[in-house]
Amino acid sequence: MRIAIVSVGHSKFGKRDDVSVQELAFESFKEAMENSNVDKKDIDASIIGSSPEYHKQRSLPGVITEYLGLNPKLTYLTEAACASGSAGMSAACAYIKAGLANTVLVMGVQKMLELTTPEISSLLGRVGDVQWESVFGTTFAGYYAMYANKHMAEFGTKREQLAKVAVKNHHYGFMNPKAMFQKEITLEKAMGSRMVAYPLTLYDCCANADGSACVILTNEELAKKYTDEPVFIDALGYASAEMSVLRRKDLSSVPSTVLASKMAYKQAGIEPKDVDVADVHDCFTIAEIMAYEDLGFCEKGQGGKFIDDEQTYIGGKIPVNVDGGLKTKGHPIGATGTSMFVEGFKQLRAQADKRQVSGAEVALTHNIGGIGQYCFVGILRR
Amino acid sequence: MRIAIVSVGHSKFGKRDDVSVQELAFESFKEAMENSNVDKKDIDASIIGSSPEYHKQRSLPGVITEYLGLNPKLTYLTEAACASGSAGMSAACAYIKAGLANTVLVMGVQKMLELTTPEISSLLGRVGDVQWESVFGTTFAGYYAMYANKHMAEFGTKREQLAKVAVKNHHYGFMNPKAMFQKEITLEKAMGSRMVAYPLTLYDCCANADGSACVILTNEELAKKYTDEPVFIDALGYASAEMSVLRRKDLSSVPSTVLASKMAYKQAGIEPKDVDVADVHDCFTIAEIMAYEDLGFCEKGQGGKFIDDEQTYIGGKIPVNVDGGLKTKGHPIGATGTSMFVEGFKQLRAQADKRQVSGAEVALTHNIGGIGQYCFVGILRR
Repeated sequence: MRIAIVSVGHSKFGKRDDVSVQELAFESFKEAMENSNVDKKDIDASIIGSSPEYHKQRSLPGVITEYLGLNPKLTYLTEAACASGSAGMSAACAYIKAGLANTVLVMGVQKMLELTTPEISSLLGRVGDVQWESVFGTTFAGYYAMYANKHMAEFGTKREQLAKVAVKNHHYGFMNPKAMFQKEITLEKAMGSRMVAYPLTLYDCCANADGSACVILTNEELAKKYTDEPVFIDALGYASAEMSVLRRKDLSSVPSTVLASKMAYKQAGIEPKDVDVADVHDCFTIAEIMAYEDLGFCEKGQGGKFIDDEQTYIGGKIPVNVDGGLKTKGHPIGATGTSMFVEGFKQLRAQADKRQVSGAEVALTHNIGGIGQYCFVGILRR
Repeated sequence: MRIAIVSVGHSKFGKRDDVSVQELAFESFKEAMENSNVDKKDIDASIIGSSPEYHKQRSLPGVITEYLGLNPKLTYLTEAACASGSAGMSAACAYIKAGLANTVLVMGVQKMLELTTPEISSLLGRVGDVQWESVFGTTFAGYYAMYANKHMAEFGTKREQLAKVAVKNHHYGFMNPKAMFQKEITLEKAMGSRMVAYPLTLYDCCANADGSACVILTNEELAKKYTDEPVFIDALGYASAEMSVLRRKDLSSVPSTVLASKMAYKQAGIEPKDVDVADVHDCFTIAEIMAYEDLGFCEKGQGGKFIDDEQTYIGGKIPVNVDGGLKTKGHPIGATGTSMFVEGFKQLRAQADKRQVSGAEVALTHNIGGIGQYCFVGILRR
C-alpha cells in the first residue's frame, strides 16, 4: 500500500508570543483543512511531534486535540529531539499501512521562546548524555563545532565553505514568507559575524523558534477522495546512533544519516542522483555539508567543494534547502521534520512559488535528532 | 496477523535513587532478555514510553538505547501522560502489523523522585489546561476528588467503599515483590489517614515512583522461535477526551474508558464478563470504582457495591489489580502501562505466584492518561 499526503499546513515560524501552543497548532491545521476535502471526522488519529519540556503546558496532545476538535480519536506525542516530527510521520505511516487508521494528522509543533536562551541551551545540551558529557558544559553548538573541526582537519573544509551554506539558505529563505529570517546576507557578513563555538559563527547556527507544521496522510485509495494531487511517501528510512560522542568512530560523518538514507533509497528503489530537491537538517552549516556527503549527493569529503560549485542551488545537481532550511526558517524542534514534508509536498505539486524547482518529481527529507542519535529520511514522489 | 508478547521484564518500583534512568531501564530489559530466546539483534525498534520532563536527562531514547546496546535500530519516545507506556504498545503493534518491524521492545520507564513532591505536583497539575485550569491551582488529587464527590452525590458511593479498594490493593501488593508498598492495611487505617483532597485521604492516592517495565512483541510466526508460551494481544482499544473538566458532560464517568473498552471488546470478540483478570488504572481509589463501571464489569453507579461484595478479589466475578495496582506498586507514569501488560502476561502464563488467578485465559489492561484525555484498553489471551 502506498501512503499519500493529501494536505499540509505551515505556520509562520519565529518568535510567536502572540499565540499559545494550541493556537500555533491551529494555524497550520486550519491551512491544511482549507486546502483539501478532509473533514475533521475523517481523522482517525493525531500524532503530535514535539519536545514537551519547553512548554509550561504538559502533555500537549490533550490540549491540542481538544482545541482542534479532534477528540475522541487516538492521540499521543512522539519525541526524538529535533526529529520528533519525523518520528510522528513514521508512526502515522505504520498505523495506515497496518490498516489501524485510514487518515492521520501529524502535527509538529513547538514553542521554545517562552524560555530564555540560557534555559534553551541547557535543555538542548542535556539531549547529550547528562552523566558523562553535558556535565562538562557541552552545548549543541559545541557538539557541531567538534564535527566542523574534524571535517576541516580531515578534508580541508574551509570556514568560507560553511559560510556559503548560510548565504545560499538566506538567499532562498528570502523567498519563503513562512521563514523566521527573510533577508539575504553576503559572504562577508556571514564570515564576520561573532564566534559562537569555533569555527561556527552566528550565521553558521540556526535559531531557536516557535512554529507548527502539519501533514495529513491517508492510503492511496482514500487520497483520491480528498485531493486531485496527492504526493506519495515512497520511503521513510530511519536509524539511531550512540548518544555519546566518545563512542562514535568518526566525527566527520553522521552514521545514522548514512544508514537511514540507504534504507530509504532501497525502499523507494532510487539512487541519490534521482533526487530532484532535498530538505536536509542544517541546524548548523557543517551539518548541511556532512549531509551532502552522508546522503550520497557527493563523495565523502567533497561537501565543501559541492557548495563552492553551487551544486545545491536551483540549477545545480541537487537543490537543497530552497525553503531556507532550518537556518533561515528557524528550528522549532518538534515542527522541523513536518516542515520538511510540507516543502517536499509543495515542490512536487509545483506550488513553491519563486523557489520552485522546475519539474521536480522526487523530493527527499532528512531530519536529525540530537547529534545524530536519531535520523529519518523520507522520499516523496508525485 | 496476531501480535504476540514473548517476554517481559519489571524492575522493583519505588524510590530508586540507587540507579540512573538508563540503569533502571536495564533492570527490566535484562529480565526480559533472560526469560526468552530473543537476541538484541532481533529487536527492530525500541519505543520508549515516558513523560520526559521529570528527568534531568532529555531525549531518553538516545541514552537508553545506547545503554541497552540497541542502536542503530529505530527508536523514539511516546508520551500520553500516565498512559505513555500503552501509547508505546499501540505504536509497536502498528509497526508489526504493518510489516515494518518484526520484533519490538516497548520500554516504559520513569524516574520521578529526583524531584520534590511540590515539583511533581506542579508538573502533574499542568497536564491539565494551564491557560484555564491549572492556573487556579488544580492538582491531580483535586481533579479526582471532583470525580469522587460527583460519584458520591449521584450514586451514594461512600468513603468506606473507596477505602475498601485501598485495602484490597494493599492485600495483593503485599504479595508482589516488585511493589513499592508491601504491607496490608486495615479499613480503619485507610479511613483514618490524613485528608489530601476531600474525600480522598492518603490511602486513596497512589504514590509517585521510579520504575521500569518492558514488553517484547513480535508476530505470531516468529513468536514460536522465541518462546513456547506466547501471550497474544487480541485488541488494543484507544480513545481520547477533552482536557478541560469544564467541557466534560459527566464527571462520574471517564468517557475515553467507555469508548476504548468498547473498541477493545469488539476487536477481541468478547464481552466484559469474559475477562478473567484485569489491571485497571487506580491512580486514586475512585478511579478504580469508575473503571468497574466504565469497563462494564458492573452497572453504572454500582461500583461501590461491587467492592463491598468483594467481586474484584480473587474468587469474585472479576479479580482486579491483584498485582496491587498503581496504589501499592507505585505509579512511575511512563512505566505504568507496560507494567499492566507484564502482569497480564504473567497471569496468563500462570506465573503470578501467590496472586495467581487460577485458569486465567483472558486478561484486560486499562491505562488512563491525565484525567482521561487518553485511554488504552488491551485484551490479552493465552
